[in-house]
Amino acid sequence: MSRSVLKRAVGVVRGAASSMPRRTPSLPESANPPARLSLISRHLAPEYPINTPYTIERLPDTIDTSRLPKTQTRKLSYSATMSSQPPHPTLLIPGPIEFDDAVLQSMSHFSESHVGPTFVATFGETLTMLRKLFQTTDSSAQPFVISGSGTLGWDIVAANLVEAGEHVLVLGTGYFSDGFADCLRVYGADVTELKAPVGSRPQLPEIEKALSEKKYKMITVTHVDTSTGVLSELEKLSELVHRVSPDTLFIVDGVCSVACEEIAFDAWKLDGVVTASQKAIGCPAGLSISMFSGRAIKALENRKTPVAAYFASMNKWLPIMKNYENKKPSYFATPSPQLIHSLHTALTQILAQPLSERFAAHKAASDKIKKAVADLGLKQLASNPDDQAHGMTAIYLPETVKQAEILPQLAKRGVVFAGGIHKEVATRYIRFGHMGVSILDPRRGDVDRAVKALEEGLSECGYQKA
Amino acid sequence: MSRSVLKRAVGVVRGAASSMPRRTPSLPESANPPARLSLISRHLAPEYPINTPYTIERLPDTIDTSRLPKTQTRKLSYSATMSSQPPHPTLLIPGPIEFDDAVLQSMSHFSESHVGPTFVATFGETLTMLRKLFQTTDSSAQPFVISGSGTLGWDIVAANLVEAGEHVLVLGTGYFSDGFADCLRVYGADVTELKAPVGSRPQLPEIEKALSEKKYKMITVTHVDTSTGVLSELEKLSELVHRVSPDTLFIVDGVCSVACEEIAFDAWKLDGVVTASQKAIGCPAGLSISMFSGRAIKALENRKTPVAAYFASMNKWLPIMKNYENKKPSYFATPSPQLIHSLHTALTQILAQPLSERFAAHKAASDKIKKAVADLGLKQLASNPDDQAHGMTAIYLPETVKQAEILPQLAKRGVVFAGGIHKEVATRYIRFGHMGVSILDPRRGDVDRAVKALEEGLSECGYQKA
Repeated sequence: MSRSVLKRAVGVVRGAASSMPRRTPSLPESANPPARLSLISRHLAPEYPINTPYTIERLPDTIDTSRLPKTQTRKLSYSATMSSQPPHPTLLIPGPIEFDDAVLQSMSHFSESHVGPTFVATFGETLTMLRKLFQTTDSSAQPFVISGSGTLGWDIVAANLVEAGEHVLVLGTGYFSDGFADCLRVYGADVTELKAPVGSRPQLPEIEKALSEKKYKMITVTHVDTSTGVLSELEKLSELVHRVSPDTLFIVDGVCSVACEEIAFDAWKLDGVVTASQKAIGCPAGLSISMFSGRAIKALENRKTPVAAYFASMNKWLPIMKNYENKKPSYFATPSPQLIHSLHTALTQILAQPLSERFAAHKAASDKIKKAVADLGLKQLASNPDDQAHGMTAIYLPETVKQAEILPQLAKRGVVFAGGIHKEVATRYIRFGHMGVSILDPRRGDVDRAVKALEEGLSECGYQKA
Repeated sequence: MSRSVLKRAVGVVRGAASSMPRRTPSLPESANPPARLSLISRHLAPEYPINTPYTIERLPDTIDTSRLPKTQTRKLSYSATMSSQPPHPTLLIPGPIEFDDAVLQSMSHFSESHVGPTFVATFGETLTMLRKLFQTTDSSAQPFVISGSGTLGWDIVAANLVEAGEHVLVLGTGYFSDGFADCLRVYGADVTELKAPVGSRPQLPEIEKALSEKKYKMITVTHVDTSTGVLSELEKLSELVHRVSPDTLFIVDGVCSVACEEIAFDAWKLDGVVTASQKAIGCPAGLSISMFSGRAIKALENRKTPVAAYFASMNKWLPIMKNYENKKPSYFATPSPQLIHSLHTALTQILAQPLSERFAAHKAASDKIKKAVADLGLKQLASNPDDQAHGMTAIYLPETVKQAEILPQLAKRGVVFAGGIHKEVATRYIRFGHMGVSILDPRRGDVDRAVKALEEGLSECGYQKA
């Protein structure tokens, strides 16, 4: 990646940090109730609004967050300070990834009411930032952030946007597209899987043929299948879907792509992208994050049958998300303030530089890693360079080297890779995740260290490049 | 509460802490890759196991966690050190509650693989500790910890343990029992709600009558309805259910009761308790926590129709939870290592003293608060002392005082209470949560401060006790 990109980003973040109050890590007053109370009350505006789910109905427009006490300040440390994390093995699996100090510090935010004004403001800003990350300015599009694993995103799609018996075309790229298909079936969808061989993806002509044969309510694509490192091409695929089957909803599983691969939600006319916090977004696991188009919301509204889930119901969450973004407290189920703070910090860091530079940095790191892999005489699962993800690399092991030998060799060198997960070849490959701070902060040296560990580890396992 | 109880608990925790390695908050080595690498490799055992979901199938018994590098050490600060949290309003709503420093610090744990041995060990220990919290030694009972809000627990019950058309009797105590009923209906249950007047709970004779009239697959009770502060009596209720309708599953919504009200899972023959992390357990929101009996698991196995959800599927999670507890890596959806670490710390603190003392401490604090409320001339929603929860108090406001006046008065004094949420009386009452550190650590002075703030605030609103 270019150092100038990084420097600029750090500059912006530093600028932001300098205008914020300093964090007071351990004020003696904090253990002294009267002093603490006085500190607090000095900062409280008299119209501190009511903390209740019903507030929205009673006080729709009374929250002036600018006059409220500031939420806990986060140092925006993004590659600008020494790490405050204890020494630990470098996690280079395709998610969770290594996290920035400031993001982790935000996880320790003191307790706040989930319907209190400071947290509501943080949640609202988080949703607005997600619009920027997904490159959408369409006000009919709607971001959702819900406590859960990334997998919950599949339920959200399957329980809300498809009705029992409706046809869904799933583009099969591996373990994760199989999972999405299973989830769709649980909620009654009639699923057709168009499966590609391991390390490949369904091709446009066969997709066109499939779309012409049947009326599909939805087509799903796994942008990056984390089991194989295969990248799908969204823009051309979307053109095809909109040309051949314009009523079909175009849904993207972006768990391993959002924030490391370009996603132009509006320009590419996507109807839904579901993702998780712990991959390229760089926030600890625990949040299902998604964006749906106005057209997807219409499909929800036009359902003939009730939504097939409760916690995953978009009908339940839609008004809540709209209210949060409008800084109005609202309640369906308790969100995790700490995770939302952490996501807020991660998104602030991401948006401190142009997204194009972030994607270019991931591509540059990926190119470097893939060249190193080739130089070692190793092959990737994704054999076609156009199909290779930029946030991870799935690497076939030499025939003489076992996964159970090489992974411990890497671990001994302080680097954690993941094993295989595609059922046809699970034991024959390893996965190297390269997203977020590990590639954006060159001072960490994560990539070089990992490549060196791989080289040394293979050699220790008796492998010599032919 | 008794000070001797607390002192003993602190002693135990201190003892535990002293045997653990000290945390090294900001080692200079951490920014120096070679030094860091050497530090790490010194501590890595050669058999560092494989990080992959498939590990379980290949290396079932090779994980000796005692030889692995220790996970990030948590100071067990439970009321033994000064608070390291910045000054902030004291959160005394019925969840989320104020969190202990060590619990919040655990939220910032460095990134780990969700299938790596150190995290798997932490998750496994967490599940084992939950058995103790629920007072079950029955190996057929199964704890579940899944990323999500507490609400997800309703989906888990509704989608797994009831089939479409089966009858469920919901004991109606307020907003939250209504929510559980709604959720059950979404998944097709035929729900009968036995509703009590506001501030009360259905009585045993009417429950007996209802159970005699129809064959119910399940009965649900909200142990503490957070909307009213009404406590239900589980032991006698369970006796009744097992006598009158022994095949009926007895399911408890324990969101606002687990860890502050006694729950004897085995002794009371409960079939399921669903709860959340952010209330009396004292861990930030984001985890759905539940315990199910062997009989409930049997009901799952005996379903005639498929489970009606994917992410909330007990079939999917059951083997994962069993594997984690056996320290075997396993994967269905990515858990949140940071939240699990935090829960691990919270449970370690809880179990450092006898549970009976914890419940007694909550009762003592509750008695004190309820006396103060009565002394102020105020009434509770729960008018019968036997029906009053011990972790929260729902207080009717004087007729002359509006919620929109008193809550800001409390906030000005650094205390955050919640507004009403029961639809029939929402604007007429406020809710005071008193769980966890706010009552267990008397040095915080939270309860006294809150009572004083309430007294002063009411006076500022023109209220004088008659």
